[in-house]
Amino acid sequence: MSAERETYSTGVPTQWVGPIRVSGNAVEGEIEVPLATYESPLWPSVGRGAKVSRLVEGGIRCTVLGEQMTRSVLFVADDGAHAHRAWQAIEARIGDLEDVVAAGSRHAKLKEVHPEIVGNLLYLRFALLTGDASGHNMVTLAADHLMSEILSWDLGLGYGSISGNFCTDKKATGVNGVLGRGRNVVADILIPHSVVEERLRTDAREFAELVVRKNYVGSTIAGALRSANAHFANMLLAFYTATGQDAANIVEGSQGFTYAEAREDGLYFSCTLPHLIVGTVGNGKDLPDVEYALQRLGCREEREPGGNARRLASLVAATVLCGELSLLAAQTNQGELMATHRKFERTKGQK
Amino acid sequence: MSAERETYSTGVPTQWVGPIRVSGNAVEGEIEVPLATYESPLWPSVGRGAKVSRLVEGGIRCTVLGEQMTRSVLFVADDGAHAHRAWQAIEARIGDLEDVVAAGSRHAKLKEVHPEIVGNLLYLRFALLTGDASGHNMVTLAADHLMSEILSWDLGLGYGSISGNFCTDKKATGVNGVLGRGRNVVADILIPHSVVEERLRTDAREFAELVVRKNYVGSTIAGALRSANAHFANMLLAFYTATGQDAANIVEGSQGFTYAEAREDGLYFSCTLPHLIVGTVGNGKDLPDVEYALQRLGCREEREPGGNARRLASLVAATVLCGELSLLAAQTNQGELMATHRKFERTKGQK
Amino acid sequence: MSAERETYSTGVPTQWVGPIRVSGNAVEGEIEVPLATYESPLWPSVGRGAKVSRLVEGGIRCTVLGEQMTRSVLFVADDGAHAHRAWQAIEARIGDLEDVVAAGSRHAKLKEVHPEIVGNLLYLRFALLTGDASGHNMVTLAADHLMSEILSWDLGLGYGSISGNFCTDKKATGVNGVLGRGRNVVADILIPHSVVEERLRTDAREFAELVVRKNYVGSTIAGALRSANAHFANMLLAFYTATGQDAANIVEGSQGFTYAEAREDGLYFSCTLPHLIVGTVGNGKDLPDVEYALQRLGCREEREPGGNARRLASLVAATVLCGELSLLAAQTNQGELMATHRKFERTKGQK
Amino acid sequence: MSAERETYSTGVPTQWVGPIRVSGNAVEGEIEVPLATYESPLWPSVGRGAKVSRLVEGGIRCTVLGEQMTRSVLFVADDGAHAHRAWQAIEARIGDLEDVVAAGSRHAKLKEVHPEIVGNLLYLRFALLTGDASGHNMVTLAADHLMSEILSWDLGLGYGSISGNFCTDKKATGVNGVLGRGRNVVADILIPHSVVEERLRTDAREFAELVVRKNYVGSTIAGALRSANAHFANMLLAFYTATGQDAANIVEGSQGFTYAEAREDGLYFSCTLPHLIVGTVGNGKDLPDVEYALQRLGCREEREPGGNARRLASLVAATVLCGELSLLAAQTNQGELMATHRKFERTKGQK
Repeated sequence: MSAERETYSTGVPTQWVGPIRVSGNAVEGEIEVPLATYESPLWPSVGRGAKVSRLVEGGIRCTVLGEQMTRSVLFVADDGAHAHRAWQAIEARIGDLEDVVAAGSRHAKLKEVHPEIVGNLLYLRFALLTGDASGHNMVTLAADHLMSEILSWDLGLGYGSISGNFCTDKKATGVNGVLGRGRNVVADILIPHSVVEERLRTDAREFAELVVRKNYVGSTIAGALRSANAHFANMLLAFYTATGQDAANIVEGSQGFTYAEAREDGLYFSCTLPHLIVGTVGNGKDLPDVEYALQRLGCREEREPGGNARRLASLVAATVLCGELSLLAAQTNQGELMATHRKFERTKGQK
Repeated sequence: MSAERETYSTGVPTQWVGPIRVSGNAVEGEIEVPLATYESPLWPSVGRGAKVSRLVEGGIRCTVLGEQMTRSVLFVADDGAHAHRAWQAIEARIGDLEDVVAAGSRHAKLKEVHPEIVGNLLYLRFALLTGDASGHNMVTLAADHLMSEILSWDLGLGYGSISGNFCTDKKATGVNGVLGRGRNVVADILIPHSVVEERLRTDAREFAELVVRKNYVGSTIAGALRSANAHFANMLLAFYTATGQDAANIVEGSQGFTYAEAREDGLYFSCTLPHLIVGTVGNGKDLPDVEYALQRLGCREEREPGGNARRLASLVAATVLCGELSLLAAQTNQGELMATHRKFERTKGQK
Repeated sequence: MSAERETYSTGVPTQWVGPIRVSGNAVEGEIEVPLATYESPLWPSVGRGAKVSRLVEGGIRCTVLGEQMTRSVLFVADDGAHAHRAWQAIEARIGDLEDVVAAGSRHAKLKEVHPEIVGNLLYLRFALLTGDASGHNMVTLAADHLMSEILSWDLGLGYGSISGNFCTDKKATGVNGVLGRGRNVVADILIPHSVVEERLRTDAREFAELVVRKNYVGSTIAGALRSANAHFANMLLAFYTATGQDAANIVEGSQGFTYAEAREDGLYFSCTLPHLIVGTVGNGKDLPDVEYALQRLGCREEREPGGNARRLASLVAATVLCGELSLLAAQTNQGELMATHRKFERTKGQK
Repeated sequence: MSAERETYSTGVPTQWVGPIRVSGNAVEGEIEVPLATYESPLWPSVGRGAKVSRLVEGGIRCTVLGEQMTRSVLFVADDGAHAHRAWQAIEARIGDLEDVVAAGSRHAKLKEVHPEIVGNLLYLRFALLTGDASGHNMVTLAADHLMSEILSWDLGLGYGSISGNFCTDKKATGVNGVLGRGRNVVADILIPHSVVEERLRTDAREFAELVVRKNYVGSTIAGALRSANAHFANMLLAFYTATGQDAANIVEGSQGFTYAEAREDGLYFSCTLPHLIVGTVGNGKDLPDVEYALQRLGCREEREPGGNARRLASLVAATVLCGELSLLAAQTNQGELMATHRKFERTKGQK
């Protein structure tokens, strides 16, 4: 039905910002980044952070801490005792499950199977390595095969669901951060006091205090869940849209941590992003705008499996740090945020 | 700096899906909806839900339950006693604050001021009516004025932050659902058993059981926060991108509830979306693709203030329901999800 | 059946600790507090905090910010539109509901009715003032009357449940902190640097840093919900048990915030406890041990309604602060926590 | 100081309820259980559930799914890259850490080390097997040794805190349920329809519906965190107090799941309790009342390590199920809860 419908493009305004100076275990250099967004004040805001990065030796250091993609399935047993016994039988045959995954895809590799039992319900959360893909389809396909395999073992289990919401895809939960989903990256920088004062118009102590009061105390009373940041979601959306990612994953992407310290030698500032669900191949990556962006970012090179995606994740994290740094700096001073917005809007209007 | 940079468009593939049959307190008729997404299987999936809506009298009923936009500010006092006394003084002058908001904008109206004190920190969460705008800028501007006004009262308060993360914008929290942020819409439909069986290839009891086991039990063990659905975020992202919304708000948008009941006369199915942050005017709404979409949706008509935005929010909710219904139906049957994906991908490939 | 069974007493070891120096809007003086606990190291720990309080002018300032007790009920409608219309009708008759509550009890007063609709389900959360009682029974009785009244109005609603878990009693949730449940108290103190160093063997900056890293960052990654403290639950359990409270309410009581600042004139330290569910009359308060404790605490005096309970809540908060201060101080120094435990255990053994 | 103070006993009213019929992998038989509580209606309520258990073959089946006790420590590095490298070095020497734990205690065994990095902060969560003890002191002692060992490795780490709140002790979080803390037990029963109707005055379908609407939908809108039950905390508090447990652990104990299904052959009813932090030896277990209770429960027999504690945990779970079953049944019928309370209070008054 839908195949007959016309497909057209909705154009999202895009600018390349930077370059950002970055270093780390998956990227090195001065690199511009694309931001596709209807919220154009984001460009100069990230741009200011990028400028700061270029004033610091090594710039923003990005460390990829881990990676995996996940899908959970649901089996139904008669009762808790049967669910438990079934899980014990499955746990004893993890090797067989690894074979099933390997047989279904050249790129996928089973990393972990995590169970949880509620009454007679058995949830299994599969974690896979998925190379340079974000891995949505790879894990769903693997889960399909794994379910069929397990059901064939006659453990007294019935089909519950191919997705049991314990994955967890595009919902705000605690499990993703604890067990991992996507690429986990920490980006940080030590900014000399002089740069803090001249470029960010604040000082390290005031800045660190704001991070505590807003991102931690404020988020706590808001009832935030594994989330302590000002606006990760804005940078994630713009970067994801420009590079063909499934931007609905900014939901879990928004759950991450900004942490700062006022040190003797400057402002230590960090953004930790535990669930960057990004890939450089797969669905949506062959569209012209997307291909252009990925290539210009240097994420379509010959690298070891996952190398391009880890580079991409590092650049996302660095970009998030730039935008977070800039907004928080603005909020340390009364009136600055609105003044900047107004100025930028006026500039736009004059064009 | 950024003004000199080139701005281009990233094209996001878009189809109009439906029409969806809808009724309710803000919309009535059979209306097609635009979905801009890199995940093209979403189109036939929402399309299947739309088909179901047209087989039911009244289709999907959308009830707008409430609306408001929020921003929180942070004041710093000497201690808890002073913060408390300051709040009491502010509470006694809410009328003055209403005047400040009214003076700053024709469209904004102060609806509620909600305080929370932590030690010596006083957080105030302002809720405003913002007409047909989503209201991001309106509440920030109002918060700026309100802060200046309150600081001028000499209550022993100092400036903390123009945004205290108790708003809460684009982060997964509990406060938004409890106190409200954006437009709150419930969409529901009663689907006759025959339609459930023929169009959704399942039955009402199995379907309702899956909703419980996946969306409620599964989400619960995932540590979800005020979230019990399969994939609200997918439909929200696509609809928001097509209509020029700030799609980073799908973070809180993803927090909503799918609830179903197997009844004698069919499957009762509902999607409740407490935080739809959408507008028909404002930032990004004057781009050609966006204007076209909003006009075709009938959301640029002459209506009472907020009427266009409520119509838009209702259509978003109906679209979410269509996609949610379709995916859940697919997951009641082993293997169906993957088979559908494969079929759709193949169709695409053959073109 | 149970009436024929033997009832005996399980003895929980109890000591009076302090006195704590306190001031504020509900209590003033130097007052000893009772702690009934199997974890005897709690006594010297709270004792150390009490000692610190006596070295500061005004001691610990306790500010009662608000109070109420809550119960939610659940109604079932045909669909969301009917649930919405029913709520509008109820909202228009809040005065009638206030009369129902007033007629059912001399002490109870309806303060707020907060609705939430999910599909066809209508949850109403009633907040009541309950005088000096914690109010569990008062709100359940009121809810029973309110439900009957509302059902008699023929709004198309059916009975769902007398308690809809939106109350929320003895479960960890976000709603209680946002809308209020129990007495909300902030306790704080400004400790001169000399006292911090001599009595707490740490300094203000190190202490404040630990609060951030442990109570905020650590709690955040743990996926805590409106909770940022070290061990509120320990003091609450001991105080509640000694004074005949329903100690299962430490579940929500444990959700509260420790916040500190290193200032020029000392360490600012605060504990904010939004849900202290305590009373000086009602169930369990007539047992001899309990009566003795409440009288010795000065919580059985002639005061305005709620005055005794607010005094009690203030003392609970001050006690929590003492224990929190002491444990955090110990954790700033490597090895101190275990050394203290060992020393205390040895002392006990020698007796 | 405190050693000179008088210690006396606060008497908490206690009854033995049941017997409960139980079976499973750690307990078998008909066993009475002690409940120490100020809330005396709890006794007949649990008693009604126990009665139901005796009408079903096999009674309540209790399956212990896992066990461990946890403590997290906090190290501070210069930045994220150094924290990451330090963790890699630690991960390569887990064997050394196992030796450290084994050397420090005959009963403790290191089971898992789980890391999380935020900026320059490295949190390590140690999970230990602790035999028949709940293990609070054992894990703190082990953490102390482990920290010293790791700091001696010169990895560029500094001491942060002996407890980093990622443990998580007595706070409501997501991490405990996902990674485990305490003993994880599922208790379930299949109750014939006749028993449901005669003893619980309801039917299976209505009952299951209430569980969904109240425990799942209601908890979801309350912003509950890994919690879907009516009142686990009440039974936990009473059982813990009667058996000398550290009842502050009901905070995490309250996070568990009630799940029910209306089946052809009856009502399937289950309570899953992922974090029962209980022991039969250790602090507080040598008090006369406690020793009596543990012995009468058969939890001081010669068994394999952990066997007594697993038996105890199973009995706790069965008791929770009895109380949960009874309360939910009462709430299916309008007015029953209050009527029962009143009747029980009257009976008490007549004595």
